Amino acid sequence: MEVTPNHTQTVAGWAAMNESGKVEPFIFKRRENGVDDVTIKVQYCGMCHTDLHFIQNDWGITMYPLVPGHEITGVVTKVGTNVTTFRPGDRVGVGCISASCLDCDHCRRSEENYCDKVTLTYNGIFWDGTVTYGGYSDVMVANKRFVVRIPENLPLDAAAPLLCAGITVYSPMKQHGMLQSPGGSLGVVGLGGLGHVAVKFGKAFGLRVTVISTSPAKEREARERLKADEFVVSTNQKQMQAMARSLDYIIDTVSAKHSLGPILELLKVNGKLVLVAAPDQPVELPSFPLIFGKRTVSGSMTGGLKETQEMLDLCGEHNITCDIELVSKDRINEALARLARNDVRYRFVINIGANSKL
Amino acid sequence: MEVTPNHTQTVAGWAAMNESGKVEPFIFKRRENGVDDVTIKVQYCGMCHTDLHFIQNDWGITMYPLVPGHEITGVVTKVGTNVTTFRPGDRVGVGCISASCLDCDHCRRSEENYCDKVTLTYNGIFWDGTVTYGGYSDVMVANKRFVVRIPENLPLDAAAPLLCAGITVYSPMKQHGMLQSPGGSLGVVGLGGLGHVAVKFGKAFGLRVTVISTSPAKEREARERLKADEFVVSTNQKQMQAMARSLDYIIDTVSAKHSLGPILELLKVNGKLVLVAAPDQPVELPSFPLIFGKRTVSGSMTGGLKETQEMLDLCGEHNITCDIELVSKDRINEALARLARNDVRYRFVINIGANSKL
Repeated sequence: MEVTPNHTQTVAGWAAMNESGKVEPFIFKRRENGVDDVTIKVQYCGMCHTDLHFIQNDWGITMYPLVPGHEITGVVTKVGTNVTTFRPGDRVGVGCISASCLDCDHCRRSEENYCDKVTLTYNGIFWDGTVTYGGYSDVMVANKRFVVRIPENLPLDAAAPLLCAGITVYSPMKQHGMLQSPGGSLGVVGLGGLGHVAVKFGKAFGLRVTVISTSPAKEREARERLKADEFVVSTNQKQMQAMARSLDYIIDTVSAKHSLGPILELLKVNGKLVLVAAPDQPVELPSFPLIFGKRTVSGSMTGGLKETQEMLDLCGEHNITCDIELVSKDRINEALARLARNDVRYRFVINIGANSKL
Repeated sequence: MEVTPNHTQTVAGWAAMNESGKVEPFIFKRRENGVDDVTIKVQYCGMCHTDLHFIQNDWGITMYPLVPGHEITGVVTKVGTNVTTFRPGDRVGVGCISASCLDCDHCRRSEENYCDKVTLTYNGIFWDGTVTYGGYSDVMVANKRFVVRIPENLPLDAAAPLLCAGITVYSPMKQHGMLQSPGGSLGVVGLGGLGHVAVKFGKAFGLRVTVISTSPAKEREARERLKADEFVVSTNQKQMQAMARSLDYIIDTVSAKHSLGPILELLKVNGKLVLVAAPDQPVELPSFPLIFGKRTVSGSMTGGLKETQEMLDLCGEHNITCDIELVSKDRINEALARLARNDVRYRFVINIGANSKL
């Protein structure tokens, strides 16, 4: 339990205590609401695949006990004396980042996500030296810079995954010009938490969207529910060859090890692929489709705070939210087990606020 | 031997007859000089690593007998009636491409190198259905569109490799903004035929150039002869870590299988790496350095004809040529054997015109 002097607020949450892949109820302390802080009664928290990686210590950097969760929505209950942009009662969100140096070139451009000293919302080290705890908990205390506003017309549950899944695909789509290219063609590889939002953004901004998946079973849903224009089974060579050199952009959301070769062949000359997942093992990059097509593979990791707010505002305008399965607090481990099997359409969101006293 | 009716000019050259890795004297026919053609007395031909790949049939697509060579310089001896831009006596060059469809979007933008129907200067199929033969030969017949002018102040021998090695690094350097970023920092991975030209372009256009090599022995030469600002041994982790996040651009010229991970770590956030070599096996692309640094890996393959002429003209202005070892016609196989061991500083050029009657 925290021993930092100002960590006096008792909070109930769920933590992984070891690499078993499960969480359990966990009582811990958060800091008092400081002059620049916003205290939030958490209502919902999305379950990101990254949570599972940290819970299982897949990357060898987990600090237990780990309170996961970085797709957090809720209602402001308290603001510090320096906070003018939020008031109690405001509907807000907290995403992947809870602190950064505020002083480097990246922070000045609100690319806090690329700051050398970026602090993740959980399993990070905050300015005061304490380990950060995420949104699988009743209450968050967040610095005002790292809080965003949820548009009034978006439900807090289905909006929660926008804070990670949404911004993760939005940022590269904007920065590579995809959202400014109506009539262009976008391929979305993998139809999961990230992929399904990419399809929605693509359609909202006038792109022709092709879903590329290993699962033929997803075709109907992709076309009917998500309004994808085309669906290609990536293991079907005939389908893949018919799509060769046809796409302007690809968002690759697959975190399993894979080769980029067959996917790159779908791009036109000068086409751009953005990898937004984080496969544990290196992906294979054959040189020929890269070189012969002057193609580009870029990476992207979430987004900055200004961009996150911009994305949320656009989601409000276009009425974009995530397709979710709501999880009650007593079934988090069940959802984690399903998440490990990619058995979710398309994001679990924990109903943290259910039956709790505000 | 060619049997196409208009292939009546007897030419002496050197051809690989099988996968042995060697060439031998070979007499063959070239087409008559057509109305749009330029006949060239070949003076010099550079030896590209690609020649070796084709000679050995590394990619399984070689059509024997194979007359290699696509870094060709010489003097015009004849022009067709439609040719107004070249005259007998002009100093000219022919690079990797000898035909394309002339009609697609790429051809219209003079990106003939990305045309679906691009015909390589050797081992390609020309418009008349015949197999193309390259510059390891006394005489070339080339369509005027695929001929470039060599600036008067550049020697034809040291200029020859600009037709492939030069344009291969110039095109992506220009297209990714490297040559328009004086004061920026460029890493060049691999100091060979391509790498040493990239260093020269970088220095000529005001970049700070770091050579990244597996060979500590190349440091002195890189700094003293090529004026590189920094030299890093890629297997020296301490040196590599000291360079982390310091480069704006990287040109990767290494054709051996390698991981892009350690190299990507050298790039700043948003930094760009261009792969210009064609490793047989996929390179490894770890997702973390790509994603955490919003970095980009692009491919590029030679350049178009307008861009090639532009590059040559700039080489004339900046007096840029390649560092070469001149090879006499009776020692081509010796040079091929050394090329296979990467034992060349930095490009072999065959003295095709020596002792021949013009």
